[in-house]
Amino acid sequence: MQRRDEERLILVTNDDGYGAKGLRAAIEVARRFGRVVAVAPAEMQSGMSQAITMFNPLYLKRVSEEEWGELYAFTGTPVDCVKMAFDYLLRDRRVDLVISGVNHGSNSAVNVLYSGTMGAAIEGSFYGCPAVGLSLADHRPDADFAAAVHYGEQIVRAVLDGQIERPLCLNVNVPQGEPREIRGIRVCRQNRGFWREEFFRHEDPHGRTYFWLSGSFVNHEPEATDTDEWALAHGYVSVVPVQVDLTDYARMTALRRALSTE
Amino acid sequence: MQRRDEERLILVTNDDGYGAKGLRAAIEVARRFGRVVAVAPAEMQSGMSQAITMFNPLYLKRVSEEEWGELYAFTGTPVDCVKMAFDYLLRDRRVDLVISGVNHGSNSAVNVLYSGTMGAAIEGSFYGCPAVGLSLADHRPDADFAAAVHYGEQIVRAVLDGQIERPLCLNVNVPQGEPREIRGIRVCRQNRGFWREEFFRHEDPHGRTYFWLSGSFVNHEPEATDTDEWALAHGYVSVVPVQVDLTDYARMTALRRALSTE
Repeated sequence: MQRRDEERLILVTNDDGYGAKGLRAAIEVARRFGRVVAVAPAEMQSGMSQAITMFNPLYLKRVSEEEWGELYAFTGTPVDCVKMAFDYLLRDRRVDLVISGVNHGSNSAVNVLYSGTMGAAIEGSFYGCPAVGLSLADHRPDADFAAAVHYGEQIVRAVLDGQIERPLCLNVNVPQGEPREIRGIRVCRQNRGFWREEFFRHEDPHGRTYFWLSGSFVNHEPEATDTDEWALAHGYVSVVPVQVDLTDYARMTALRRALSTE
Repeated sequence: MQRRDEERLILVTNDDGYGAKGLRAAIEVARRFGRVVAVAPAEMQSGMSQAITMFNPLYLKRVSEEEWGELYAFTGTPVDCVKMAFDYLLRDRRVDLVISGVNHGSNSAVNVLYSGTMGAAIEGSFYGCPAVGLSLADHRPDADFAAAVHYGEQIVRAVLDGQIERPLCLNVNVPQGEPREIRGIRVCRQNRGFWREEFFRHEDPHGRTYFWLSGSFVNHEPEATDTDEWALAHGYVSVVPVQVDLTDYARMTALRRALSTE
C-alpha cells in the first residue's frame, strides 16, 4: 500500500548524537518522504551496538521544532532512542520508516555488530516498519554527505514503493566521493573478517596507567567480489539486507550428537 | 587435538561485573579444565550488547591472584574485556576457551543481541577459540548456580573434546532449579520475538522528568517446540549455536531487482 508523502511519519536517529552533520543528512533524506521525528542521542554513542540502558534514568529534551518536524535529544543509547520513539513519543501513531545515520564512518562487514547506527536500525525493524541504516565511509565531522543523501533517497524510495517484502532492514554504506564518482548500488552479503585491536598504553596526569582501544579490520576474504567491503572499496554503494536470527543452523546436527541428553 | 587440563588457558568474563556471584560460578566451571584468567567489567554492564569503548580511556586492575588463576577488573564493556585479554594481557599465549557468564538472568531468543554476556562470547569466538555464554534464568544476586555449573561443565567438556567443528560459539541458558530437576540439554534455534517496552515516567528530586526503561518479551512463536524459549520454559538447558553473518540471503534476489544499478 502506498501512502501519500504528507501522511508518512519517519523516525530518524543516529549514534553520533543529535548535533552531528550526518543526522542533518538523514533528515534531508527523510523529509522528502514525510514528516520527520528525529530522536537522537544527547551524546556520542559510536560503537554502542544494540546496547540498552537498564539501570539508569534517561532524560528527553525537545531541541527544536522545524519545518520538517521535531528534533529530540535523549540521554540513552541509539536503541534507547528508538524505543523511546516507538513506545512513548509516537506510541499511538503509525511510523512508516526508520532511518538511522548518516553515520560518520562506514559500517560494513562485522561492524554491523558493533555499530550503534545499525543497532538502532535493527531495533527499528523490530517495530514492523522498514529500517535503513545509512553510513558514509568518511569519519570527518564535516564530511560531504551529498552522495549519501542522493543514494539514501533512491534506496528509501524503492523501500517505500513497497516492492520489497517486510520486515526489512538494510545496511547501506556509501563510499567517499561526489555522487557522480560513485559507480552505482550493489546488493551484497556481509564480508567475513574481524578487528584486531591494539591498546595504546599511557599514563594519565595522576600517574595511573590507562588503555585506549584502537585497531584495524582484517578482511578474511579480500578476493570475494560479492561482499560489502568489496563494493565499498570499488566505488559502489553497498546494500546488505539484515536479519537477526543468529542460529548457526549448519551446526545443529553435529551439536545434537555431541550434547543432547534428551 | 586434546590438550592436558593443566596446559589449558581459559578466559572468563561476564557482564554483571567482577564481583558477581555468577562470575565465580563460571570460574568454578573453567578451573576444572585449566588455568583461568578472568577479566570482568569493573561495573555492571548488563544490556551492553557488543558495545566497544572507542572514546574513553580504560583502566585495568588486578584484583587478586588465586589458586585457580588471576582476576582482573577492567573499566570497559564486556567486549572491551575480551579484547583487553586477547590483544594485551594474553597476547603471546594460546587461549583454549572463553566462558562468559554465568549471567544473572536468561539470554534466550533475541536477547542474544542485547546481552553483554553474549556480546563477550561472540567476541571471544572471533579470536579462534570456542566460546560459551552461560546464563541462568534467575536475576537474583544470590541465585543458586549449582545447575549452571553442572551443565556448564558438561557442555564445556564436550566442546573441549574437539568433536565439534570450530569456530564455535554457544548460547547456553539454564532454567531455575536444582540440577536433578532439570530435564536435560536441548540444542535449539533462537526463538522469534521482540521486546515491547514501557517507560516509567517520574520526576527526579530536582523536578526534571526522567524515563526508566522496562518491558516484556513478546514470543512470536509460543507453539514452536524447537526454540530456546520453549526448552527453558519446559525445564531443559537450551544450547543455541551462534554465528554472526546477519545477511538476509533470502532477500537478495528481490532486493537486487529493486535496487541494483550496476
